[in-house]
Amino acid sequence: MTSPEVSFVDDVFDFTDSEDADAPFPPTYMVVRFASSLQPRAIAWLVDKVRGPRSHGGAELLVRRQHTEPGEGVILHVSASCRKLLELAEDMELKKRDQAGLMREFLFAHLRDFVGEKGSREDLLTTAERQLIVRHELDNIRALSEDPSIPGYPNFRMYEGQSIVQVMMHRALITAMYPLHDEESLKRLSTKWYYSKVQPIEDIRLYFGEAVALYFKFLDFYTIKLLLPLAIVGVLQMVLSTYETLPFFCICNVIAVTVFLEVWRRRSNESAFQWGTIGMTSLDEPRPNFHGTMMRDTVTGRLLPQFPRRTTSIRMYCVSLPIVVVCLFLAFLVMLASFYAEERLTQLAKDPESGVTSLTVMLPSVVYSILVYIVNLYYRQLATYLTEWENHRTQSQFERHRVIKLVAFEFVNTFMALFYIAFVYQDMDMLRYQLATMLIILQVVNNAQEAVLPLVMRCLSKVPSPPRVPESSSVRTVSSAGDGGGSGLRYRGLTRASTNELYPGVPEVLQGIPELEPDDPRQRQALAEGAMDVYEGTYDDYLEVFIQFGYVFLFSAVYPQAALWALLNNLMESRVDAFKLCRLFQRPLARRVKDTGAWQRAFEAVGAMSIMTNCGLLCVSPPMRRLAPDLSPTQWVLRWVAVEHLLMGVRYVLHQAIPDKPEWVRVALAKLNYQSKQALRKERALKRRMSSRRSPKKPLD
Amino acid sequence: MTSPEVSFVDDVFDFTDSEDADAPFPPTYMVVRFASSLQPRAIAWLVDKVRGPRSHGGAELLVRRQHTEPGEGVILHVSASCRKLLELAEDMELKKRDQAGLMREFLFAHLRDFVGEKGSREDLLTTAERQLIVRHELDNIRALSEDPSIPGYPNFRMYEGQSIVQVMMHRALITAMYPLHDEESLKRLSTKWYYSKVQPIEDIRLYFGEAVALYFKFLDFYTIKLLLPLAIVGVLQMVLSTYETLPFFCICNVIAVTVFLEVWRRRSNESAFQWGTIGMTSLDEPRPNFHGTMMRDTVTGRLLPQFPRRTTSIRMYCVSLPIVVVCLFLAFLVMLASFYAEERLTQLAKDPESGVTSLTVMLPSVVYSILVYIVNLYYRQLATYLTEWENHRTQSQFERHRVIKLVAFEFVNTFMALFYIAFVYQDMDMLRYQLATMLIILQVVNNAQEAVLPLVMRCLSKVPSPPRVPESSSVRTVSSAGDGGGSGLRYRGLTRASTNELYPGVPEVLQGIPELEPDDPRQRQALAEGAMDVYEGTYDDYLEVFIQFGYVFLFSAVYPQAALWALLNNLMESRVDAFKLCRLFQRPLARRVKDTGAWQRAFEAVGAMSIMTNCGLLCVSPPMRRLAPDLSPTQWVLRWVAVEHLLMGVRYVLHQAIPDKPEWVRVALAKLNYQSKQALRKERALKRRMSSRRSPKKPLD
Repeated sequence: MTSPEVSFVDDVFDFTDSEDADAPFPPTYMVVRFASSLQPRAIAWLVDKVRGPRSHGGAELLVRRQHTEPGEGVILHVSASCRKLLELAEDMELKKRDQAGLMREFLFAHLRDFVGEKGSREDLLTTAERQLIVRHELDNIRALSEDPSIPGYPNFRMYEGQSIVQVMMHRALITAMYPLHDEESLKRLSTKWYYSKVQPIEDIRLYFGEAVALYFKFLDFYTIKLLLPLAIVGVLQMVLSTYETLPFFCICNVIAVTVFLEVWRRRSNESAFQWGTIGMTSLDEPRPNFHGTMMRDTVTGRLLPQFPRRTTSIRMYCVSLPIVVVCLFLAFLVMLASFYAEERLTQLAKDPESGVTSLTVMLPSVVYSILVYIVNLYYRQLATYLTEWENHRTQSQFERHRVIKLVAFEFVNTFMALFYIAFVYQDMDMLRYQLATMLIILQVVNNAQEAVLPLVMRCLSKVPSPPRVPESSSVRTVSSAGDGGGSGLRYRGLTRASTNELYPGVPEVLQGIPELEPDDPRQRQALAEGAMDVYEGTYDDYLEVFIQFGYVFLFSAVYPQAALWALLNNLMESRVDAFKLCRLFQRPLARRVKDTGAWQRAFEAVGAMSIMTNCGLLCVSPPMRRLAPDLSPTQWVLRWVAVEHLLMGVRYVLHQAIPDKPEWVRVALAKLNYQSKQALRKERALKRRMSSRRSPKKPLD
Repeated sequence: MTSPEVSFVDDVFDFTDSEDADAPFPPTYMVVRFASSLQPRAIAWLVDKVRGPRSHGGAELLVRRQHTEPGEGVILHVSASCRKLLELAEDMELKKRDQAGLMREFLFAHLRDFVGEKGSREDLLTTAERQLIVRHELDNIRALSEDPSIPGYPNFRMYEGQSIVQVMMHRALITAMYPLHDEESLKRLSTKWYYSKVQPIEDIRLYFGEAVALYFKFLDFYTIKLLLPLAIVGVLQMVLSTYETLPFFCICNVIAVTVFLEVWRRRSNESAFQWGTIGMTSLDEPRPNFHGTMMRDTVTGRLLPQFPRRTTSIRMYCVSLPIVVVCLFLAFLVMLASFYAEERLTQLAKDPESGVTSLTVMLPSVVYSILVYIVNLYYRQLATYLTEWENHRTQSQFERHRVIKLVAFEFVNTFMALFYIAFVYQDMDMLRYQLATMLIILQVVNNAQEAVLPLVMRCLSKVPSPPRVPESSSVRTVSSAGDGGGSGLRYRGLTRASTNELYPGVPEVLQGIPELEPDDPRQRQALAEGAMDVYEGTYDDYLEVFIQFGYVFLFSAVYPQAALWALLNNLMESRVDAFKLCRLFQRPLARRVKDTGAWQRAFEAVGAMSIMTNCGLLCVSPPMRRLAPDLSPTQWVLRWVAVEHLLMGVRYVLHQAIPDKPEWVRVALAKLNYQSKQALRKERALKRRMSSRRSPKKPLD
């Protein structure tokens, strides 16, 4: 770490060079907290693996122990030498921008191409990347044939090749695992983020990773490129307030949505190329929770868990799909029941003798809302469980299938009632009133829930207990992949932590693990951030935008001003989200994504549906009908069916005509592909020549 | 050619080794016929280039001259040594199956991996591939800076890098260029083809190339996997003849079509992988007719014509699209006019004094049919011209955009009248009658036109003139890319040819080109096949299937038996097409394709439309209406709109759920990609090490 004159190619790497207890310990990239009841020799065994050499299945990482009171769970700080990180970056095929500005896989031997002649190798990897690398190595410590079970726990058996850290998290022996914030970078980022007009996407990516950066890029693009123009047109429509221009406005709306989603796909591919994630496929390295028999991977030849894709498909279509469909149907029935009850009560309320007051009439809606909230919590667990059981290979696939399940349910719960009002009651005023209420409630409640509430809670909890941090950490969700998409299992966390004092009574078996300096600020930080909420991934953020998108576009024919409210909300939303991420949550582990996954499809589906609903709304709207009194009802309906089909046709043509990737990205990818194909040809030719030189030539024909 | 002991890697290639006039001339791979008026020195100049060394822009091919009478156009036979062909195969990145069964790019240095220890290198390349290679080399003879124009034609100017052969074809100096049939292989293939139950797709591919093989694979798959089951169900429906089961039958139909098209896409990708064409992109080597400024290609670094993609897009959307839309609209108007005229005449015919007989009533239909036929010919030229002007880079793109234009027009002409009968007249009996007539006419006329007519013509022309071949060759279409997609320019061919006699009066400048032996049968063959019709590509064959597909599925609600007729027709059709290709046409140049291009989309569009039309037909059908007399007309219409939307939803879900490529293809492609990426990494690491060894090491930080 401190020796500046290292030649990067030829010298043999000595992984113990920084393991001297006197040398300064590099920044903590991952904090690991163990259950207080855990037997010390299991910890010692794991630490041996974490520090041990690769040849013995170790991870060659650096470990320090934090001072803890006896009876408390052990807390470890895991780090790695700069050299080790770079080597692992090469192993993980991390893509970095070289001096020529091209994104390509980092090669240790080419270090100079990436950092330049004057650059320092310390600056090459961002802290987010270092944390990702360390986490990846920890997850990759796999059980050997001599480890049938965790020491001290003969019942917690492991099969060869299983990820030990995953087993220990699953068994609640490890209670938490999280990276630490980098106070200085965070300060710089948050200042830029709160006050600049444009979202600093690249800085967000470097600090929080691609998934979070892509969400903010999407939010920004959606707000500025779609909502802003439509809000202006919507206000204009409001001012004109004529029914003659409403169909025109609606058609503009649905076409704008289609074009926006196609252009966004291009943009997202552009980003994915610039971020080096565009080549991610479902055949990439599996996520830690993926299980299967250890076999040679067909693609890479590495020893990896393998699970037949066919089984996953069967589970998806034969088990999960029917269950989800039944759930959706039940949700729909509950909604109908609530409407039915309300109708009955309204009728009864007209009769003064029935004893039904106008307050009682509201009961079904209230009960329905509470029911939806509760059922939603259970359904989320069910969806996560099912998707976990389907056993998807990559994190992106897992996320996609989980999001599809959740979004379908949310859609039914949120929009079915509105559809019912629109097309069964055909009460446009009630629909408009409902829309306005829900849109405003949505934004007020969400922003309060996301930022104001936690802030108040924190202030309140600050007053009574000065060493606040250990007290507030109680039950927390530990995600298995550093993201909300994880297993959703709940572990009981630590309830008390150290107070920076040195206690001698450390078990003998743990004496070999060096302790951090007593005054090291990281110990306090580890406890404080451990007490913070876990950022559950971008799901909730996207969901919020998705529901708003539905409100604005599904019913724009009755409430054209929705775009304006949505615009105002989003301008605030992005700041609230930024604040939330920087100040309220534990630092999330960076996650690489190549696109918005299932959300792209969900938005597209709503886009298509908005054509149907808007045509339907215009068709049933009485003022529109009055404009064409000569047509018979059937003719009138057929007119609108024709318009709808025409718009669907336009949508299809636009979808086909706008290429998914910009030309320059296609050319750049083709170039890379061509170069690597050429290299393979050369390599093969070379091999052949070598072998033919060794063996005597034979005539061929 | 005759020396068996050649080591394939190290010895220097001497391209003149087979150019000895006494050595046997290898099989003719390409016949080039020149205009009779062409100045001999232009021919001599071209032949010099064809035989000349690569270093001077030559093609290093072998050339023989055919005996011709003075005043007739010169005919050249072009061939290449086996070694040269293999080298060119490597240059063209031709994919071959190696001994391990893997498709990979052929490498000359790896010859033994492909042919095995005992195999002969002569057998590696099929005749189709050899012809393709030779044609590719001929097209690739490009004008040098010292060739401002064709010798003897100072007005026929060329820019540097232009394909000389293309210029000479464009200027009608070369009147024809075609490969020859391989009588022995053809006999073997045709026997297998006519009599075996399953289409010998692999043999077809080896002889006719991928485009033709894919067409037959599609026809086979469509007939067996879609039409056969539906014909059975259709007959069942006919037997039952109840209106209650008709909707069920229709729903089966449209879902079957959707599944069929998705599964076909998988199959076609499977074939493309096995044939090594799956990696074809729009950034591949441009087709010969592509023009632009000569520049270094961004992807490969080769000197190739470059043309901005943006200009092509602008031309497509701002010029071609409006023109095509106007044409479609005009065709629609003409159809309406024909219907209007017929209606008027029918009304007049009721009045006996008007002088309008029932024969006159048929006049509009007859005039309309003739008009459609004539306009179609012009429109085809227009579409070809527009697509040529759009200047697409690859042959596949060119084909795709030409087919889209043509199919849209054919669709309007063929189906609009039926839509009019179905939804404006709502006369189901008339529709059924029309469908049956057109379906039977289609298959009788087509089969007659394709096989019987040419056969009769040939027999007739055989009787009067024993040396029949030169007589019948008059005006022929020369396609610029060996396929119907070419420029469509017409050249006046040769009118008389040699009678195997030796004539001395050959111009001095051509004396250097050795002549074929006087008794060489190839001379007769070249003339005979030159007189045959040119196979214009698979367009007409696909179009026939497409129109049939439309008849069967767009209106299956009124005529469920259509599938049966289509099935019977197709069983014959594949034999007729086989006969046509083997016996009636000039051998087409093999063309590589990765999918059915625009046809996939066209069939999918009709599949989607069939949902609409069938729902519409059931909705307007009076017997169906009688089944639900309680519903109001509007309710009835809305029911069917709902059913239609539901089916569209099912279609979308199926489209999303069925992956485009089978799992094994995805894995195999990922493996190849991984291997080449690894090779590139190694290569880069190696380079870096070499350069760092040469320069003194510098410290980095």
